[in-house]
Amino acid sequence: MTADPPRADQHWRLSLNQATTRQLSVEQAVRCCAQAGIRGIGLWRDRVDELGTARTAELVSQAGLTVTSLCRGGFLTAATAAGRAAAVADNRRAIEQAARLGAPVLALVCGGMPPGSRDLAGARAMVADGIAELAGDAAAAHVRLAIEPLHPMFCADRSVVSTLGQALDLAEMFPAEQVGVMVDAYHIWWDPDADAAVGRAGPRICGFQLSDWVLPLPADMLLGRGHIGTGCIDFRRLDTAVRAAGYEGWTEVEIFNADVWAAPAAQTIATIIDSYRRYVACEPGG
Amino acid sequence: MTADPPRADQHWRLSLNQATTRQLSVEQAVRCCAQAGIRGIGLWRDRVDELGTARTAELVSQAGLTVTSLCRGGFLTAATAAGRAAAVADNRRAIEQAARLGAPVLALVCGGMPPGSRDLAGARAMVADGIAELAGDAAAAHVRLAIEPLHPMFCADRSVVSTLGQALDLAEMFPAEQVGVMVDAYHIWWDPDADAAVGRAGPRICGFQLSDWVLPLPADMLLGRGHIGTGCIDFRRLDTAVRAAGYEGWTEVEIFNADVWAAPAAQTIATIIDSYRRYVACEPGG
Repeated sequence: MTADPPRADQHWRLSLNQATTRQLSVEQAVRCCAQAGIRGIGLWRDRVDELGTARTAELVSQAGLTVTSLCRGGFLTAATAAGRAAAVADNRRAIEQAARLGAPVLALVCGGMPPGSRDLAGARAMVADGIAELAGDAAAAHVRLAIEPLHPMFCADRSVVSTLGQALDLAEMFPAEQVGVMVDAYHIWWDPDADAAVGRAGPRICGFQLSDWVLPLPADMLLGRGHIGTGCIDFRRLDTAVRAAGYEGWTEVEIFNADVWAAPAAQTIATIIDSYRRYVACEPGG
Repeated sequence: MTADPPRADQHWRLSLNQATTRQLSVEQAVRCCAQAGIRGIGLWRDRVDELGTARTAELVSQAGLTVTSLCRGGFLTAATAAGRAAAVADNRRAIEQAARLGAPVLALVCGGMPPGSRDLAGARAMVADGIAELAGDAAAAHVRLAIEPLHPMFCADRSVVSTLGQALDLAEMFPAEQVGVMVDAYHIWWDPDADAAVGRAGPRICGFQLSDWVLPLPADMLLGRGHIGTGCIDFRRLDTAVRAAGYEGWTEVEIFNADVWAAPAAQTIATIIDSYRRYVACEPGG
């Protein structure tokens, strides 16, 4: 389902996740990608909503870009049945939006523990239940749900899915064309079982995202991600493993970092392209 | 090797890890424990060094306390061979100190990645090599090395040993009486494989430490731990699993938190005892 970008392009697998240039509108981000020769973009729902889904799809298409993912659905854990039903309904809207944008995958940040809860197993069961309610919608819309394991430091408040192996256990409850996994280097780099999980994931991999682990973490842990090559992650090794597992899709650079957002977007995009080529890419025949 | 505290005592398995009352000297901490009926204490090398090893051993013994662990050895990863040799030498001193204090275990925080490195596998190999150099010393001193997996958010800078399963893979390279694992709730609570790893650990468990995961994390991630019951960890469940695995030793409460250090020590210790009884203890026959 992933479109095949032109192989002649040096950074043909590289996609800009919109979070990296959060200061830009959709129009601005699309223009920057086109100017820099980046052929893919990962969109965020809140920014798409500002412009409208139809207009965004039009702009992206006119610029010759491929939408590589829509971020994000999930947050399926809630203390009440009504809260969980509302989350499922919101995810149905996200699936529909992904389809209208031509996004092959909807990334799922599955949700943390309901406030006050100590029932981690219960929260994990809520995630499985929520995905079970959504898998049929995803299949009908030809959008894959990408379960994204988040770093365990986000287990309490953002995702009770904490390892790639656990994400695969969940995904494998459903057909591969409906539910896969998002491999995000920042979230899994530390995992002693990551290599085995990437190999096991194979065709379940429906997205690959990059940012670096840099120290110290800032007060807001969400914003601690760095440009590729500025931290301690061995991206080339992970890229090789993901490609060896059979993944042929795009690689999104997704950096949450207040300093990156404060920098000129053109500079950020130039850094992304340069660091992708220096630290990541295993180009075909290259 | 763990001494058996009197079972009549309501909180007989409860030990104060000295880090929880870091504002106190060894003398003060020992006095507080004795006054509160806590019969075990986990000591820290820097505080012991202030008073001297012999004098500390004497004080602890006079107060009728058991030393439940010495914190800490480790930090076996370094960029140079000389750095690694210095770390091994320091760990030898720590083993000797543990023996002189009557501490059955030396907790190992194994070390993060050398600055600038992206070689996680290499850092993990350094840990295995370091422990191999120390196991014989530990055996001779009748002190067990307790490999402590740290939460993955500390992988880059404090411990490349990130899960209990990984710690067991390392420990099992050595005889069980030489090398075991420290089970710390704060570090492993999120792990989908924690239950299986605790069961597998069995007689390798040579320590059990508690503090709660509370949000938001502070700017200094090291200090985010909370009193038992104030966060999202299900301690009773973990305690049951650890006991079912055959662990009969002490439970240390080890809280790194600036607010806890600012509170009166007597209040902190009263809270520890109360929360231990409310949220943790599976008392024999109780």
